[in-house]
Amino acid sequence: MISWNNLDQLEAYKKLSTLNNEVHLQEEMSGANGAARVQKYSVPMSSGLTYNFAAKQVNDKVLDTLASLAKEAQLTDKYAALYNGEVINTGEKRLVLHQLTRGQLGDTVTADGVDKRAFYVEQQNKIADFANKVHTGEIVNAAGEKFTTVVQIGIGGSDLGPRAMYLALENWAKKNDTFKMEAKFISNVDPDDAASVLNSIDVAHSIFILVSKSGTTLETLTNESFVKDALKNAGLDASKHMIAVTSETSPLAQSDDYLAAFFMDDYIGGRYSSTSAVGGAVLSLAFGPDVFARFLQGATEEDKRATNTNLLENPAMLDALIGVYERNVLGYESTAVLPYSQALSRFPAHLQQLDMESNGKSVNRFGDPVGYVTGPVIFGEPGTNGQHSFYQLLHQGTNIIPLQFIGFKNSQLGTDVDIQGSTSQKKLCANVAAQIVAFACGKEDEDKNKNFEGGRPSSIIIGNQLTPEALGALLAHFENKVMFQGFVWNVNSFDQEGVQLGKTLAKKVLAHETDGALEVYSNLLNI
Amino acid sequence: MISWNNLDQLEAYKKLSTLNNEVHLQEEMSGANGAARVQKYSVPMSSGLTYNFAAKQVNDKVLDTLASLAKEAQLTDKYAALYNGEVINTGEKRLVLHQLTRGQLGDTVTADGVDKRAFYVEQQNKIADFANKVHTGEIVNAAGEKFTTVVQIGIGGSDLGPRAMYLALENWAKKNDTFKMEAKFISNVDPDDAASVLNSIDVAHSIFILVSKSGTTLETLTNESFVKDALKNAGLDASKHMIAVTSETSPLAQSDDYLAAFFMDDYIGGRYSSTSAVGGAVLSLAFGPDVFARFLQGATEEDKRATNTNLLENPAMLDALIGVYERNVLGYESTAVLPYSQALSRFPAHLQQLDMESNGKSVNRFGDPVGYVTGPVIFGEPGTNGQHSFYQLLHQGTNIIPLQFIGFKNSQLGTDVDIQGSTSQKKLCANVAAQIVAFACGKEDEDKNKNFEGGRPSSIIIGNQLTPEALGALLAHFENKVMFQGFVWNVNSFDQEGVQLGKTLAKKVLAHETDGALEVYSNLLNI
Repeated sequence: MISWNNLDQLEAYKKLSTLNNEVHLQEEMSGANGAARVQKYSVPMSSGLTYNFAAKQVNDKVLDTLASLAKEAQLTDKYAALYNGEVINTGEKRLVLHQLTRGQLGDTVTADGVDKRAFYVEQQNKIADFANKVHTGEIVNAAGEKFTTVVQIGIGGSDLGPRAMYLALENWAKKNDTFKMEAKFISNVDPDDAASVLNSIDVAHSIFILVSKSGTTLETLTNESFVKDALKNAGLDASKHMIAVTSETSPLAQSDDYLAAFFMDDYIGGRYSSTSAVGGAVLSLAFGPDVFARFLQGATEEDKRATNTNLLENPAMLDALIGVYERNVLGYESTAVLPYSQALSRFPAHLQQLDMESNGKSVNRFGDPVGYVTGPVIFGEPGTNGQHSFYQLLHQGTNIIPLQFIGFKNSQLGTDVDIQGSTSQKKLCANVAAQIVAFACGKEDEDKNKNFEGGRPSSIIIGNQLTPEALGALLAHFENKVMFQGFVWNVNSFDQEGVQLGKTLAKKVLAHETDGALEVYSNLLNI
Repeated sequence: MISWNNLDQLEAYKKLSTLNNEVHLQEEMSGANGAARVQKYSVPMSSGLTYNFAAKQVNDKVLDTLASLAKEAQLTDKYAALYNGEVINTGEKRLVLHQLTRGQLGDTVTADGVDKRAFYVEQQNKIADFANKVHTGEIVNAAGEKFTTVVQIGIGGSDLGPRAMYLALENWAKKNDTFKMEAKFISNVDPDDAASVLNSIDVAHSIFILVSKSGTTLETLTNESFVKDALKNAGLDASKHMIAVTSETSPLAQSDDYLAAFFMDDYIGGRYSSTSAVGGAVLSLAFGPDVFARFLQGATEEDKRATNTNLLENPAMLDALIGVYERNVLGYESTAVLPYSQALSRFPAHLQQLDMESNGKSVNRFGDPVGYVTGPVIFGEPGTNGQHSFYQLLHQGTNIIPLQFIGFKNSQLGTDVDIQGSTSQKKLCANVAAQIVAFACGKEDEDKNKNFEGGRPSSIIIGNQLTPEALGALLAHFENKVMFQGFVWNVNSFDQEGVQLGKTLAKKVLAHETDGALEVYSNLLNI
């Protein structure tokens, strides 16, 4: 029997709150201690990844208490309830089924009269079939020529996740001869976004994917109009260039305006939709269905690890609980995501949405205000770029910001150069290793301007190479981490009521139904 | 006579600290009050921009105290000392002269035996001459063909600022027939960064700009090698494809390896270098020297406004002091930068460096620890994209995050579409207006999950269009804001000792001079 309790009602949390000055990384991470910690505080993930948390401010006592918290909060039971099809999204009264898009973790889940795993697989197969026909030239443009470019039209979860995944695998696919079509993305309602993407492509050889679950997202429909105008101006039949990813009940589902329609449903939130048709269509067209399948395989392997009741064998749950300890006990407000991989340049932006939209809440799942802080601010840029930018504040600023590093032993393209006795890839890895120790240990200097206090916590996920499987595992790790944190904070991580008020007021402005401040701003902005 | 005092020694700050619950935006921004506030709390900037701070948690009492603080902290006197050539960068014992790259605000500044304004103008003229010759075909490749692409090789301030400025003006230049050459950027030591840029261009028609003040930045020299290999592999003479932006004393300055060298100096920090040769070379090649000159003109006009001793006529100083009030009195830790302009997609990343690297410090300019918090975390993405991503936390999260909006009445390309009675541009502007009011006023709802507390502060910079002048003004506004905040916090905003320890340790790793934790990480990462 699952109980949904606020964090501050849990005994383990009360104990945890007393453990707020346990670990001094400066000593713990130095010398032989440090070496032992790095070896010990490490958890295998799937797809060749490892989660290493040696540089977090935890020790066995803290970890034991976190394990008690995991048990008392019934985290793996709640996860099982989710993948077995309970109504976990209480706000919108919906199941939460994104894990089913990549595997069957538990019971058969039936909704809307169908087996949902079978439904998602069916959509994947339809997409694979469509993508294969585009790649082989069975589906072509009016002139009988192959399509070379795919353009995703979507916003939020229909944009950030798929875009981050595309960029993550673009070079890998080129290197491994699976690169099929260039992908572009139109998201912003700023007309310059659509106009500039359209100026940069050959529309006659482009397929456009309209992604909107409801079929009513205003930004996306506006950008669809932009695209249709461009196709018409080029003398083309728009319906021969557009496909839809939407729900079966949306106005787009059965329309002659689209070459094909692939379905998602209300059980998959936008920010959790990269493994659904939302990511599936664009990634299968860009890289081929096999690469997308490998990506899903990585994700489902990692999902399985998240079912482990042993905290030290469940990297997502461990990462989640350390994050709660940092946020609620140690009092840190932000977390920086720092991938040492240019391919992950937009991965932090995806995690920013995933985390902040899921857990940036002030009420629990029953709608009652909570008496503790919830989701942190998430930001980040790839290292080594960030080192030459905002790391100054991370090292010597007045607030402590926990850090999430990601690094790979091997590059994707394999082209490298040897300068001063080392390759670029070695330099990249040397930098991330050095940063972990610099943040943790610091360095005393009599000149206080050159003094590093240390004691700044980080963890790192290390992989062999950013492959489709590794990317799927990374994605699932963070989705599951965010889910577990939502369980701990007792919030609903799957709705987003906070976006509604702005939408409502924007409609008023456009209808000129404004007064007061809104009217003056409207005038200033010439609306 | 200037006194450099810590913030907590100032009488005005002591008074300010008592004013921590003055303004309830929910009431102040509603109805007629709200309309009056939006009209009143507005300061003109240059180049058609306006700084509107109606939705900040200030009133006349707070503003009076901030004015006293500005006076007591001698902010405009300190600014004058800076542009008149005093040694403001005390850590590195250097002048701080980036404003001189765009105009002469005060006395003639002589350093290294030359008039520095004349020196910077000379470099601009040399760049303009070079760029014109490239554009007219006087300088061509070995085959006698025009160069079509320019690639900047640099990291940190040699990358983020110029890249953000290029993206900001790319569409404007295309629309206004001043677009000359496509620009690309190589920054990360990740070998996939250089390899993928090189795979995407025609090296035979490319000019590469190597940007390194010292001529010794390891990432940049490594990437230069990458580029030279690619040129050699294409059978080309690298020295006919490369130019350098460096200091006169660097090993790159007089080398035959470069077609030309343009100079910056130690008086311009990387993050303040967009208006120097660091931005000048790439932007003049991409858009023509006239566009770069217009950009500088916008910046110097805004610099002049920052000399105004009247707080309410000095938008940068006002923005700075409101930020200090939010950080040190109201206790907010982060600030989100939210431009409603896709062209400003990387502007938040530039401001992230500018702000966090300048003021993320724990010691004052004399090296003594300060007893108050300094620079905030800066993050952001363009609206409307952010609305569908992390705005959930901004609206309903447990922490308050001050917001910096930016919006323009007109798009850059002018291509638009009318859907449901309004253009995309109107929708874009309606959204930003709606967000300001939604954050400030909130909206009560019996369902607490749909309740918006409001009281979440923001300001907005409104412009007619993102032109070169407007971009210059925006850039200078934030540079001056950060400078003023550094003066208030009594920190040195112009050094970055916090980046050194990581560099030192990375070198040790590459030399295999490691033990303890660093050695284990080295093994895990296969270094």
